[in-house]
Amino acid sequence: MPGWTCCERYFEDYSVGERFAGPRKTVDQADVSAFAGLTWDFHPAHTDESFATERYGGRIAHGMLTFSIVTGLTVEYNLLAISYGYEKVRFPHPVRPGDTIAAAAEVKAKREHRRPDIGLVVKHYTGTNQDDAIVFVCEHILAVQRRGS
Amino acid sequence: MPGWTCCERYFEDYSVGERFAGPRKTVDQADVSAFAGLTWDFHPAHTDESFATERYGGRIAHGMLTFSIVTGLTVEYNLLAISYGYEKVRFPHPVRPGDTIAAAAEVKAKREHRRPDIGLVVKHYTGTNQDDAIVFVCEHILAVQRRGS
Amino acid sequence: MPGWTCCERYFEDYSVGERFAGPRKTVDQADVSAFAGLTWDFHPAHTDESFATERYGGRIAHGMLTFSIVTGLTVEYNLLAISYGYEKVRFPHPVRPGDTIAAAAEVKAKREHRRPDIGLVVKHYTGTNQDDAIVFVCEHILAVQRRGS
Amino acid sequence: MPGWTCCERYFEDYSVGERFAGPRKTVDQADVSAFAGLTWDFHPAHTDESFATERYGGRIAHGMLTFSIVTGLTVEYNLLAISYGYEKVRFPHPVRPGDTIAAAAEVKAKREHRRPDIGLVVKHYTGTNQDDAIVFVCEHILAVQRRGS
Amino acid sequence: MPGWTCCERYFEDYSVGERFAGPRKTVDQADVSAFAGLTWDFHPAHTDESFATERYGGRIAHGMLTFSIVTGLTVEYNLLAISYGYEKVRFPHPVRPGDTIAAAAEVKAKREHRRPDIGLVVKHYTGTNQDDAIVFVCEHILAVQRRGS
Amino acid sequence: MPGWTCCERYFEDYSVGERFAGPRKTVDQADVSAFAGLTWDFHPAHTDESFATERYGGRIAHGMLTFSIVTGLTVEYNLLAISYGYEKVRFPHPVRPGDTIAAAAEVKAKREHRRPDIGLVVKHYTGTNQDDAIVFVCEHILAVQRRGS
Repeated sequence: MPGWTCCERYFEDYSVGERFAGPRKTVDQADVSAFAGLTWDFHPAHTDESFATERYGGRIAHGMLTFSIVTGLTVEYNLLAISYGYEKVRFPHPVRPGDTIAAAAEVKAKREHRRPDIGLVVKHYTGTNQDDAIVFVCEHILAVQRRGS
Repeated sequence: MPGWTCCERYFEDYSVGERFAGPRKTVDQADVSAFAGLTWDFHPAHTDESFATERYGGRIAHGMLTFSIVTGLTVEYNLLAISYGYEKVRFPHPVRPGDTIAAAAEVKAKREHRRPDIGLVVKHYTGTNQDDAIVFVCEHILAVQRRGS
Repeated sequence: MPGWTCCERYFEDYSVGERFAGPRKTVDQADVSAFAGLTWDFHPAHTDESFATERYGGRIAHGMLTFSIVTGLTVEYNLLAISYGYEKVRFPHPVRPGDTIAAAAEVKAKREHRRPDIGLVVKHYTGTNQDDAIVFVCEHILAVQRRGS
Repeated sequence: MPGWTCCERYFEDYSVGERFAGPRKTVDQADVSAFAGLTWDFHPAHTDESFATERYGGRIAHGMLTFSIVTGLTVEYNLLAISYGYEKVRFPHPVRPGDTIAAAAEVKAKREHRRPDIGLVVKHYTGTNQDDAIVFVCEHILAVQRRGS
Repeated sequence: MPGWTCCERYFEDYSVGERFAGPRKTVDQADVSAFAGLTWDFHPAHTDESFATERYGGRIAHGMLTFSIVTGLTVEYNLLAISYGYEKVRFPHPVRPGDTIAAAAEVKAKREHRRPDIGLVVKHYTGTNQDDAIVFVCEHILAVQRRGS
Repeated sequence: MPGWTCCERYFEDYSVGERFAGPRKTVDQADVSAFAGLTWDFHPAHTDESFATERYGGRIAHGMLTFSIVTGLTVEYNLLAISYGYEKVRFPHPVRPGDTIAAAAEVKAKREHRRPDIGLVVKHYTGTNQDDAIVFVCEHILAVQRRGS
């Protein structure tokens, strides 16, 4: 049975304080270029070495790439959950090509929802670079089925 | 002079209500696969045709890909602004491979910041598919230099 | 602690008969094209729709792509093991763009090695398509550290 | 007439000892990252610069990528042959991003097959880096049509 | 309304001497490798670090990649124009991975066409690297609708 | 000895009328998208399915992609030649995703050059689709070393 089908977790199965740490990924310049080609975000901070070196000391990764990697590294294959939304997304430190990102997630709160068959699970995400600087934080809200619903 | 250097806009230059509409982009399955490879988010909804067809009527794009495309299509090359963060990110409708996304941004509010040399500009983003269904909304907060600072 | 560091398994920790099933992945035409561009294998069976349709009823994936996906889907992040080699690699059934591959691995044998600090673990891999046809088999030999070595 | 249709070689046309040397290819970090994204093999030896530097002196390429490149560089567009399988696949030396791989193939043996219309051609492949270190060897078995069958 | 629909320009709307400068783009080795995989041009000057270093002092970008980037950076989304052809394409200086290309276009001439409903607009393109060396020039001929046709 | 080193041809070795036919390649939508991401040419004819379907009956490939593929498929690994330029580049018929392109080259003329150690070889290129419609023509001028220079 494929690994991801192991993950059917109900709202009741989540506990505030539980944590998950994903694998790490080095963000290379090729990743930044691929992301630019996929999203059409060609801000010179990401794609113009001459400009970026003069103004920022070198190219930097798109904030949205960091965001996408942190949420990808910690993705939960829970087939009873869907992504409800994100809040408080911040980028406290730039990510540069060559940086290695570690991602962690922690269940921060559980909330009622007006629909009685689901509950909201709020996870706090953190992305950290190889020097332990925090490069990304956000809250991810999941809508999760309740048992017996 | 390169096109993007045209964009040096101060906090004072933004008006509540001004709007910008970006180009449109069709999201193909290859985009979804590339995004999965870049972010390591291999949820079967995005990458397993058999599973996704049975459960969702076909594969769907990552919410974060839609988010990245909408913000990419409407990116503003304002060298006096930096991304402060995102709020109220929601995905009201799924995006499927083959859908064409249009993106729009509107300045919704301008806010003071404790640092006197910058102000916060709040933009509301909307992503719409080819049938005019809203697939994405968020608020993007920019920190923008004030004139004379 | 990142997820993959959980995996320090010694030779003694493996049991003949233990099984692992990976996630599934749909192999799209874009994957086949990307693989061709990466390996310079442009055999017309993979890259020439007109030729492949006439001769094979449509394009087919590179055997080496199937092989790479099956071993990728079942990769074990055991930091005490290194890949020693592969034997008995066979491709009993073609894979076509759009097929969804499931991968499974089973420990088939454990063998002594002339170096006393390591042992060989032989895993049997199977790749299966969405119709349960076996598209790939091989034996993967791992050299694994022994406890106390 | 397209170049590859020149290659219709029967079993009888192969001679033990004939050799073929392909072009060379530099394996870049971007190739390693693309291969990881395609196969979902994110072992930290390939994708985590911090970890790989500490443990292996830097990132290394997937063995399967080296394998795929060596067989791609020496691919024979013989429309009368199909890949039967691989044996004795070994990786005697790691490949690092920036290494340049040369590939060579030699017909090592010809074997009967129980089906009278085909014969088996065994090719020995060698991958060598820019310092003439052997990084890869295997035997590739081809099933080739016999003349008049 | 999407940004690109702003661009409906008739033949009469073009003036000889008008200029357009596009954004800049750094050409990375990953771009060169991706281009090789897309076009199957694996000349060792682009893909074999050992060979290219010995003969050219390092790898160089495909001329056609430079050409494609310069024309991409200056593309005009005029829905009343189609590309008629290119003339006088020259590559006065090599582009190396890491170089940053700026592109400029100037309307050089307007010409009659035997069809009365269209006219030809000749644009001169220039690609320049970060040291202001000209790396590319060509003439692009556009067939543009005349007003009232 | 690598295959491409076989190709050291002097100016004297070319004959007017000699022809070369390359392999064929199917141009997929993923190729068009990758090319758009590499060159930043996001004209809606290539990337906006809704727009392109309404106006052109579906998306079409970039002319520059067709050009790059035709010249890639027929690239000559002659280490004594460099690309001098292109003339008379025309796109008589659109290429759509799914079309299979065949490329051919013919030596059309040989010309003196003011430098006595080189001569110019003019090759005529043709790109043809699966229905034998000509989709691309150009002249490629090569500067080739003369013997004894």
